[in-house]
Amino acid sequence: LIACQDRHTIENDLPSWNNNENSQRLFQFISDVSSKNNKLYVAPKDRIAVFDNDGTLWSEQPAYFQLFFAMDRVRALAETSPELKAKWLEQQPYKAVLENDMKALAASGEKGLIELVMASHTGNDSATSDEYADIVTQWVKTAKHPSTGKAYTHMVFQPMLELLTLLREKDFKVYIVSGGGVDFIRPWAEQVYGVEPENVIGSSVKLEYEYRNGNPVILRRPKLNFINDKAGKPIAIHQHIGKRPILAFGNSDGDLQMLQWTDANKLPHLSAYIHHTDAEREWAYDQDSHIGQLKQGLAQAAKQNWLVVDMKKDWRNIYPDGQSQ
Amino acid sequence: LIACQDRHTIENDLPSWNNNENSQRLFQFISDVSSKNNKLYVAPKDRIAVFDNDGTLWSEQPAYFQLFFAMDRVRALAETSPELKAKWLEQQPYKAVLENDMKALAASGEKGLIELVMASHTGNDSATSDEYADIVTQWVKTAKHPSTGKAYTHMVFQPMLELLTLLREKDFKVYIVSGGGVDFIRPWAEQVYGVEPENVIGSSVKLEYEYRNGNPVILRRPKLNFINDKAGKPIAIHQHIGKRPILAFGNSDGDLQMLQWTDANKLPHLSAYIHHTDAEREWAYDQDSHIGQLKQGLAQAAKQNWLVVDMKKDWRNIYPDGQSQ
Ligand SMILES: [Ca+2]
Ligand SMILES: [Ca+2]
Repeated sequence: LIACQDRHTIENDLPSWNNNENSQRLFQFISDVSSKNNKLYVAPKDRIAVFDNDGTLWSEQPAYFQLFFAMDRVRALAETSPELKAKWLEQQPYKAVLENDMKALAASGEKGLIELVMASHTGNDSATSDEYADIVTQWVKTAKHPSTGKAYTHMVFQPMLELLTLLREKDFKVYIVSGGGVDFIRPWAEQVYGVEPENVIGSSVKLEYEYRNGNPVILRRPKLNFINDKAGKPIAIHQHIGKRPILAFGNSDGDLQMLQWTDANKLPHLSAYIHHTDAEREWAYDQDSHIGQLKQGLAQAAKQNWLVVDMKKDWRNIYPDGQSQ
Repeated sequence: LIACQDRHTIENDLPSWNNNENSQRLFQFISDVSSKNNKLYVAPKDRIAVFDNDGTLWSEQPAYFQLFFAMDRVRALAETSPELKAKWLEQQPYKAVLENDMKALAASGEKGLIELVMASHTGNDSATSDEYADIVTQWVKTAKHPSTGKAYTHMVFQPMLELLTLLREKDFKVYIVSGGGVDFIRPWAEQVYGVEPENVIGSSVKLEYEYRNGNPVILRRPKLNFINDKAGKPIAIHQHIGKRPILAFGNSDGDLQMLQWTDANKLPHLSAYIHHTDAEREWAYDQDSHIGQLKQGLAQAAKQNWLVVDMKKDWRNIYPDGQSQ
């Protein structure tokens, strides 16, 4: 009988969360929906939890980490071909990257950034899905964040790792629903977050299938297929999962529609924002940020009583190594 | 110790399969990849099995069952509005449907059929995802196949149901990868096949998200988003699952690329075709069929030693009720 007791507590399962009103509300929700005799019980098959990635599961400042990947990739590609390097030194946004000119890069706008990411993703011509996964895996192993010097995968949020583990122990199906590229996240999501490739939903490029001398490959083309942001998030959740989530975490206005969609689930549910409030240990930003802007989302969260996690007040640790940025 | 023994046998687990070379090969493959000490062992996370639907998990003659749904839907919609009915009686392919003129319907070609399916899927204007699921659920409960008189979901293949069950017991992740509409299959796939909505991959229409007075909905638009056929199948498998399958079943040339993609997995794998050879109990067709054409596929299967299931020789039963068509 003792062995069957539920030994889950905030202290045991969420040690990096301060025991306060917010963590209690979150913990109680998880406990309620997974307790057979509770009136809020939800069957395991419907325990769908969705998480934004940038700014929700790992940091996103001073730029999305995938942009740093794209820049490193452009630099590496330039070194493989003097012609390409000469061409890129005449052409934005590549020139800005090769000259490490962040101001010029920012000036290239969203169009420039997307071009950069496309080029980095598909290579000079195009990469197979297997080649691309290897490139990402290699980058994740070696690249370091420009201001913290940490590996990017060491800049994931320890409190969220604990939450993901608790959810899986409670038979939730945990999905990442990110504006980042699905094939950029998949190669390391399982090792870092415990989230398998099939549970990663993200933005994507156009793919082509080719049967090369009996060896089929999938080729990545430098053309956007789907942008998994804003209204794209509930649409992708419907296309991919076909059910509404009962738990959703985001950190920006780009997650608002995903949180609304979750909030309209007829089953018990919880929509939650991570609010970046800790300028000392991480970064503090919301309505005026150039990345992860959070304005409408905070207003709706207040109106509908969504959970708003205050990083500074609610989190005992930020990163897995216990050190801040 | 006795309780831990593997009691699986063809007779116990696949009673609707004759015990012969084909069923032994299939059974052995499943046993090998799921036995820890076997040199062909594959970890559960990589035990991905994909199944075409029409002609592989249920019948598809004399027309795809989703086309019968579309026709029933057009008839039902016409009854809701005299104006619409008058309009459709002047316009193909609707006229053909309302007049039950299968010859004129066939003459409208693929373009006509797609238009019909779009109209039926989205309603006269557009349906929300919830409304559409209700319409499909209601149809599946009441509609009958024109020649067998059976409910369509009673025309699923009993040997395949047994196979799906065995695979799940062996910790495979079972996916449907169908040219049919993903939202047409999901409402009944769990009850009929034990396949949950998130494991159904299919063709899709464009979706839009709308926040209607605080109540978010997803609207289905009468425009194709993705056709999950031929080269689309491995692409969709990559987008959705992000891993190559180790087991794939199809029945037509539309599955060839999915079977090639599976056949190139570095892990132990098996690609398989269902060959419709039983004109008495089901239908017999392959290279000259207007539906489920199987020509290139048979050639490649022979060349690469894929499993080719012969319905007439290999299956003891066809449908769950033990009765044939
Ligand atoms: Ca974010
Ligand atoms: Ca088929």
